Amino acid sequence: MNEITNLLMDHRSVRHFEDKPLTREQIETIVLSAQAASTSSFVQAYSIIGVTDKEKKAKLAEFAGNQSYVAENGHFFVFCADLHRHEVIGQMENKDVIPSIESTEKFMVAMIDAALAAQNAVIAAESMGLGICYIGGIRNNLEGVAELLKTPDRVIPLFGLAVGYPAKKNDKKPRLPLQHIYHENEYKQDEEAYREELEMYNRIISEYYDERTDGRRKDTWTGQIGGMMEKQTRMYMKDFVQGKKMDLK
Amino acid sequence: MNEITNLLMDHRSVRHFEDKPLTREQIETIVLSAQAASTSSFVQAYSIIGVTDKEKKAKLAEFAGNQSYVAENGHFFVFCADLHRHEVIGQMENKDVIPSIESTEKFMVAMIDAALAAQNAVIAAESMGLGICYIGGIRNNLEGVAELLKTPDRVIPLFGLAVGYPAKKNDKKPRLPLQHIYHENEYKQDEEAYREELEMYNRIISEYYDERTDGRRKDTWTGQIGGMMEKQTRMYMKDFVQGKKMDLK
Repeated sequence: MNEITNLLMDHRSVRHFEDKPLTREQIETIVLSAQAASTSSFVQAYSIIGVTDKEKKAKLAEFAGNQSYVAENGHFFVFCADLHRHEVIGQMENKDVIPSIESTEKFMVAMIDAALAAQNAVIAAESMGLGICYIGGIRNNLEGVAELLKTPDRVIPLFGLAVGYPAKKNDKKPRLPLQHIYHENEYKQDEEAYREELEMYNRIISEYYDERTDGRRKDTWTGQIGGMMEKQTRMYMKDFVQGKKMDLK
Repeated sequence: MNEITNLLMDHRSVRHFEDKPLTREQIETIVLSAQAASTSSFVQAYSIIGVTDKEKKAKLAEFAGNQSYVAENGHFFVFCADLHRHEVIGQMENKDVIPSIESTEKFMVAMIDAALAAQNAVIAAESMGLGICYIGGIRNNLEGVAELLKTPDRVIPLFGLAVGYPAKKNDKKPRLPLQHIYHENEYKQDEEAYREELEMYNRIISEYYDERTDGRRKDTWTGQIGGMMEKQTRMYMKDFVQGKKMDLK
């Protein structure tokens, strides 16, 4: 453990920000940190859109299910998987890159590239005393987001990132037991042990909710996640992604 | 800029490690740091497999195109998108979670979750003076990897991560100009400026290769990427992913 791993482990989401915009320098440090992350074969298959326009931010907040902190923060970023750049490169270099661009493999590459960059952005922001919240809610309406941010084909807005000076921090939620996430040499084959780990974690999470709500919230992790996964949300995604000419083959 | 953003920006891949394994404590700190990353709606849709078995590591190195550092490092992790856990939760909670699990949306969630965790692992490792290299090469043969690591359906090994004491560090490669990656309020609409930025970057990259090879390597970024993207690699990926019952609808 050191200062940096302490920072990583102390992460919690922030959903209430002070009304104080980030400086140009802060934004650039965050973006440069994002760019310094590893990228698959140097392909740099992502873009970041900073949204400062108040009307656009209000619209994004609406798309995300009226989450106020999408509009009210120090800065709002949208991270996109981006293979439009590579389509342009194909034209510049006179190479037929389209079959690659439309493959599931490259869709994965672009998504992973974007996520690695985003997490570096998060660590940079938190190292400056800022708080963050990822906003998957923009995926409620990606047609709307794409239109609003004028993203071309081969670009998929993946998630937003609200950054700012924390007015209030969430509590840190306990994660799955390390031995459940972390397997050795092979994926755990003992189904009974696997379920026992989930039960053990349920007890931890029940206690966590119980303590924080004076006993009002009775919930387990598997109960919460089972209920959530039963709901079929964002089922338009395949059509959207393929409409943007990615993940086609 | 601070100590942490300096660390982020000083990142470079390491492909030669000392013959010195990580300690249990180092591995646990890395995994706990990974777990502390944000996760979409608390879904924790990833697993990490630590590979220490010499034969398995040799096999993974072979899959990855005989990259020696896949076998020779301080520790080797494989990060997986994991919705098997959520299938088990569906059984425990008697909820029909299958349509969700098989959606493109949840495939994206699991991939992003895994990548955010991985990047935290990377920062933790680098903060301890260790070096890292992401190994996308395991995707050359995911059938082989899945068999070797006994991953069930709904689990996709995404990439490896070699970690260890650096014997030699790569040079830091200049990234795309910030204004090319970073858009404001909308995706850049000026195609001419867009291409000019790529040409500007080509000059930076040409100079980089020129300096480091005493003029032997003549290359641009768009030349390199155009050539790479023209090759159709890992085109089996859609079949593999859908064979694992993800990204189906």
